[in-house]
Amino acid sequence: MVRRVPPGDSLPRWVCDQCGTVHYQNPLLVLGTIPEHGGKLLLCRRAIEPRYGYWTLPAGFMENDETAGQAALRETLEEAGARVELGAPFSMISVPRVNQVHVFYRARLLDLELKPGDETLEVAMFDEAAIPWKEIAFRTVGTTLRRWFEDRARGSFGFHAEDIGA
Amino acid sequence: MVRRVPPGDSLPRWVCDQCGTVHYQNPLLVLGTIPEHGGKLLLCRRAIEPRYGYWTLPAGFMENDETAGQAALRETLEEAGARVELGAPFSMISVPRVNQVHVFYRARLLDLELKPGDETLEVAMFDEAAIPWKEIAFRTVGTTLRRWFEDRARGSFGFHAEDIGA
Repeated sequence: MVRRVPPGDSLPRWVCDQCGTVHYQNPLLVLGTIPEHGGKLLLCRRAIEPRYGYWTLPAGFMENDETAGQAALRETLEEAGARVELGAPFSMISVPRVNQVHVFYRARLLDLELKPGDETLEVAMFDEAAIPWKEIAFRTVGTTLRRWFEDRARGSFGFHAEDIGA
Repeated sequence: MVRRVPPGDSLPRWVCDQCGTVHYQNPLLVLGTIPEHGGKLLLCRRAIEPRYGYWTLPAGFMENDETAGQAALRETLEEAGARVELGAPFSMISVPRVNQVHVFYRARLLDLELKPGDETLEVAMFDEAAIPWKEIAFRTVGTTLRRWFEDRARGSFGFHAEDIGA
């Protein structure tokens, strides 16, 4: 594999020197939810690196053959065993340092039968005062949680587009 | 390259049988703008396949090392020579058939000095009555344009998350 600008392109790409195949590398979408029940939010404690032991909203890489909403539902089920009714998209946060865009949907937990998946140590519900702010795994999650509580206090939920470390 | 489920994963991936490298394939983000000036919208007529000769909003694949907003601005400049002030995200449309998510931002054209890029035959401004609805290149663009005119008629612009062909 060599780094060069393919014909008709404007940026250097990884190209196979044997067969000429261009291996494009583009930002990845991370999809998740903000599951709410009785005014509390669901968080997952990570059982994997990076940020083992820290708390996060259920989220993960969007896969081929699914919509953004389906990805958010799938990750919520996989990581927390949680069944939710999906609401509107709430935040879209670019993280160019790691070439990711994180999108979180509002969501209403359908019941409290939760079950940590393989990548989760435990699942718990937190009201605003109990959120473990110093043990949040990622800045996109911390930002999303802060915006969610701000919007709830205002009585109106918006859509928040932000950048981190741009 | 062989198709198999890597250790710790749950889906089959393309794996190099020689070195074990996993080549993940995930949905791509397409970023664009809805450039407005004096009540008219900017459209570009495509000089490339697919949909050569059809009209589209300026948009293209988000690259590594940029934010969603930077990608939208870059594509608008590359395809239409247009300098815009970026507004809020307006639409996010999943197209699982082609493994893409299209995001369009509202935008205000800063001047009318437009210049078609290499991938564009011509750039023109259209009021609602003149939009070439039957010659729009992509359904995500048609949907975004319809929602934009609906929101303008209502006097309030929202954020629209949709799926096409899911």
